[in-house]
Amino acid sequence: MKAFQDYYPDELSHCFGCGRNNPHGHQLKSYWEGDRTVARFLPESHHTAIPGFVYGGLIASLIDCHGTGSAAAAMYRAEGRAMDSEPPLRCVTAAIHVDYLAPTRMGVELELRGEIGELSPRKAIISVEVFALDTLCARGRVVAVKMPEAMLPH
Amino acid sequence: MKAFQDYYPDELSHCFGCGRNNPHGHQLKSYWEGDRTVARFLPESHHTAIPGFVYGGLIASLIDCHGTGSAAAAMYRAEGRAMDSEPPLRCVTAAIHVDYLAPTRMGVELELRGEIGELSPRKAIISVEVFALDTLCARGRVVAVKMPEAMLPH
Repeated sequence: MKAFQDYYPDELSHCFGCGRNNPHGHQLKSYWEGDRTVARFLPESHHTAIPGFVYGGLIASLIDCHGTGSAAAAMYRAEGRAMDSEPPLRCVTAAIHVDYLAPTRMGVELELRGEIGELSPRKAIISVEVFALDTLCARGRVVAVKMPEAMLPH
Repeated sequence: MKAFQDYYPDELSHCFGCGRNNPHGHQLKSYWEGDRTVARFLPESHHTAIPGFVYGGLIASLIDCHGTGSAAAAMYRAEGRAMDSEPPLRCVTAAIHVDYLAPTRMGVELELRGEIGELSPRKAIISVEVFALDTLCARGRVVAVKMPEAMLPH
C-alpha cells in the first residue's frame, strides 16, 4: 500500500518531515484507515528533549506532515479522483496548534491518528492525536491549504 | 555573552532543538535584548519544505525552544537570580501555536523575537515572531511550564 507521501511528485518530495527524497529527514508515511488517517513513527535517539523523552518539536513536525498529507488525501477523495491523477495536489500549513498532554517516553513507536474536520476545495482542518501505546501524548490541529502556485518549483 | 541554553545543566542539554550536547540537533541559542529575547538561526539545505522554502516544522521547533528558553530566563529574572544559580530551572512546552504568515525562503538567517507575556512562578506564555530580513514569516505562542520533577534524569 502506497502512503500519501509516495504520491507527491518527485520535485515536491524533499520535505524534512515527510519527503522520500530527503535522506536527512523523518520520511513520515501516512495512510487511510477507513475515514481516519494513520501514521507511525519510531523516534530516533537524537530526537530527545530531556533524556528519556521525545522532543516536542519532533511531535509538532509529525503532526504537521501528517496533517498536510491527510488534507491532500481528503481533497483528492472529495474530488473523487485517485492520488496519482493529474494535476498533483499538495497542501501547506497555514497554522498548527499542539497541546502536549503527557511526556512521551523514548523507545516506543508513536501512532498519529488524523480526523478530517472542515474540508473545502482549498482548505482542510485536520485533528491529530498522538499515541505512545495507550497513552495520548499530544493533540494537534492543522489548518492546511492547497499549495499556492508561487511555491511550485520552476 | 552566554545564551540561555548555555546555562542548562549538562544532563538537560540534549534537546534536538537547542541542546549543545546534541550533535544532530539545531543547537538554537537565545539571548536577552532588553526586555525582549532574540535568537538567530540559518536553516540548512535539508531543512526544506517545498524546494526553496524553509520547512514549517523547523520553524515550529525553533519557536518551541526559543519559547521555553525565554520562559526559563524570565523566571530566573523574576526570581531575581542569575541563570547559573541553583537550583537549575528548565521549562517544557505545554502548548504551542504557530501561524505561518508568509513562505520562508531558504538562504536567509531567521530572527526570532520573543516577548514575555503572562508570567507566574510555574508558567509563562511567550509570543515569538519569526522574521526573514524584513518579512514576518510566522507568529507563534508557547505555553511553557516549569519542568516537572518526574522528567529530571535519575
